[in-house]
Amino acid sequence: MKTETFNQLNKVIHEKGRMAIMTILASNPEMSFKELKESLGMTDGNLSVHIRTLQQAGFVVISKTFVRNRPHTSYRLTSEGVHAFGTYIDVLEEIVRMGRGVA
Amino acid sequence: MKTETFNQLNKVIHEKGRMAIMTILASNPEMSFKELKESLGMTDGNLSVHIRTLQQAGFVVISKTFVRNRPHTSYRLTSEGVHAFGTYIDVLEEIVRMGRGVA
Repeated sequence: MKTETFNQLNKVIHEKGRMAIMTILASNPEMSFKELKESLGMTDGNLSVHIRTLQQAGFVVISKTFVRNRPHTSYRLTSEGVHAFGTYIDVLEEIVRMGRGVA
Repeated sequence: MKTETFNQLNKVIHEKGRMAIMTILASNPEMSFKELKESLGMTDGNLSVHIRTLQQAGFVVISKTFVRNRPHTSYRLTSEGVHAFGTYIDVLEEIVRMGRGVA
């Protein structure tokens, strides 16, 4: 068993709420706060805190646009976020293999 | 994306040090403290704390035997631990599939 694999798990992404946000943003490039909140079933407070942590890590950015003359705020992964999430999923996959006794 | 999947992640196992201990005990049924410590590269303190948490959750038990007339303490997963770890790995696998965009 390669124990260093576990140390490669990104701490910011490993928390399950943030893992869910990263996963949903990886497949839905632009989501509003409301869409994220409804899709994830999180409270405003919880989602705000997790998004702030992901922004501070450089994984998520806010994009401000106008939709029908109204300001529209959405969130997307940065290229650093896409990369970190890809690496994280690779590490999880390796752990699943170890857990199944095939690595 | 099934967001309830993330809530199914067992909190006790999700911490990476404990995940490593559960993974190694899943494939090595009986390990001494020293063997665990050396395999995982953990400090005594860290390993003790994690093992206590796993014992309190009912996932790991101490087995005390004698080897060449000397007391020998080893650790193993309980059947509850084996079951919880199996479920945890199933959930991780589901998350890997979602992360790859195939679920």
